[in-house]
Amino acid sequence: MQALITGGAGFIGSHLADALIARGDGVVCVDDLSLGTDKNIRHLGSNPRFRFEELDANNIERMSQILAKERIETVFHLAANSDILKGSKTPTIDLERTFNTTFSTLEAMRQAGTKNIVFASSSTVYGERPGKLAEDSGPLLPTSLYGAAKLASEAYISAYCENFGMKAWINRFPNVVGDRSTHGVIFDFLNKLERNRQELEILGNGEQCKPYLYVKDLVDGLLFTFDNASEKINVYNLAPEDGIRVRRIAEILVEELGLPNVKFRFTGGDRGWVGDVPRFEYDLTKVHCLGWKAQRSSEEAIRHAVKMLIKERAAKPYGSG
Amino acid sequence: MQALITGGAGFIGSHLADALIARGDGVVCVDDLSLGTDKNIRHLGSNPRFRFEELDANNIERMSQILAKERIETVFHLAANSDILKGSKTPTIDLERTFNTTFSTLEAMRQAGTKNIVFASSSTVYGERPGKLAEDSGPLLPTSLYGAAKLASEAYISAYCENFGMKAWINRFPNVVGDRSTHGVIFDFLNKLERNRQELEILGNGEQCKPYLYVKDLVDGLLFTFDNASEKINVYNLAPEDGIRVRRIAEILVEELGLPNVKFRFTGGDRGWVGDVPRFEYDLTKVHCLGWKAQRSSEEAIRHAVKMLIKERAAKPYGSG
Repeated sequence: MQALITGGAGFIGSHLADALIARGDGVVCVDDLSLGTDKNIRHLGSNPRFRFEELDANNIERMSQILAKERIETVFHLAANSDILKGSKTPTIDLERTFNTTFSTLEAMRQAGTKNIVFASSSTVYGERPGKLAEDSGPLLPTSLYGAAKLASEAYISAYCENFGMKAWINRFPNVVGDRSTHGVIFDFLNKLERNRQELEILGNGEQCKPYLYVKDLVDGLLFTFDNASEKINVYNLAPEDGIRVRRIAEILVEELGLPNVKFRFTGGDRGWVGDVPRFEYDLTKVHCLGWKAQRSSEEAIRHAVKMLIKERAAKPYGSG
Repeated sequence: MQALITGGAGFIGSHLADALIARGDGVVCVDDLSLGTDKNIRHLGSNPRFRFEELDANNIERMSQILAKERIETVFHLAANSDILKGSKTPTIDLERTFNTTFSTLEAMRQAGTKNIVFASSSTVYGERPGKLAEDSGPLLPTSLYGAAKLASEAYISAYCENFGMKAWINRFPNVVGDRSTHGVIFDFLNKLERNRQELEILGNGEQCKPYLYVKDLVDGLLFTFDNASEKINVYNLAPEDGIRVRRIAEILVEELGLPNVKFRFTGGDRGWVGDVPRFEYDLTKVHCLGWKAQRSSEEAIRHAVKMLIKERAAKPYGSG
């Protein structure tokens, strides 16, 4: 298969590129390098089935040229503003980077005649609601601007499928952790501990409890639903069954860093920031029935990601902690 | 209350302006007159509580100035591309006129500190799905680009409520009929019969069956949910309980026109156009429990609207039919 990944030099995109190349597919990575980095894909550069194009996914004309010229069959649309907290302060960030990139990608696909889109949606489309999050839950009332942009994207993908004969795989997943990540709770904690090894500030009361998905499990899930679900529009939750508390993430981190005496300071309140959803759990019946389960639990995902991220920063003086 | 209506010179907007003025509110109508018309609101011009501003709702700066200067408490956001069929051919129409106008309205409200938004959403957000459409149905997979833009609008309204302390009333309603309408099935049929009195072309097989809401019932419902529902975000279906077939609409029309010998010619297929949803029914439990029901059935709404529209065209030679 010839695949194109938007946001292909990013955290998730580059892991997906690795997996597609490993299974024999051709991959064009498109990324404007605003959040992604050349470092994440440099090791693929010599592979004849791999090509990188530095490009904003909102450049519809150039995108459709690439789709046509490279005979792309499937677009994995991952380009987005991945920093939810940042987007909560400036509404245009997620409009331009998370929603408009979807509209532009769909338009480029329509113009080039590309038919398959695999979309990285999010638990944030569900907003804050009682009970487990199932694919047929409604109404969908996202609390973050990022979630709004992801739901708006789902809406447009759906209408493009009906109007222009496309097929879609919409995957709703929670926080993703692993090496090459550039934000998120582990990343933030590591940054804070670099500045102050005595005390760690934790947003909220630390009781926020969410699932965390390991990046290689996510890539595995994205490819599994794509290979095995065949409706016109396939909506799937992808997540581990358990959740983990923010306080526990901090404990694992200081344990792995060998810094047992760090004092935790909580900013208080039941959530990290306005628009954050402090607790949620997925109903995973649909994807389990299709035959997929995440290999790692949330706790395993966090511990493994912490180890990988500490290794990435190995040149720094943590090792002596 | 000081209210602002986007799309206030349009079909629904001008009827809403009438109702708000009648109950003693102050009304600022904003409309770029691309679909709306000065004729719809001219009769309100002398009222000191009424003001019209010719303006594109996407002009955020001017919108926020008006909101602040006129001390607007509630925005009724109706501006949209109301011609779904036209929007199905050019994806940017609904992006710019139906979704971007919502984002711009929200941004203007945020900048001006306006807190209440009443939104004209649509049955099209539900897409084509089995069973009755209830507010808690999911996943929402709109089939039309108009529906996608309305769902994207709902998503952003929801996130703005959470992030910027706003309150929203999201009303999902079906086709609306009545005087001052500028498109839709009755309008199309009248145009076709003006050109050819022998034969009426009907899109699809005529068995498409949907609810139709009379415009004054809709306005009544919008004000009822606004007055009586008080959650942060209030999502309500507004519709009559029954549906009516397209073939029956054509029968009522030729009956009221006194043209009993018109031959119906069906274009065939189960729907009017790609992206159309040929049959649906609402679950109205939620709004009935709140205390509201549509006064007119779909058949009554159609017959009343047909009479009003024939009267609007009275100068033309139908009367002699």
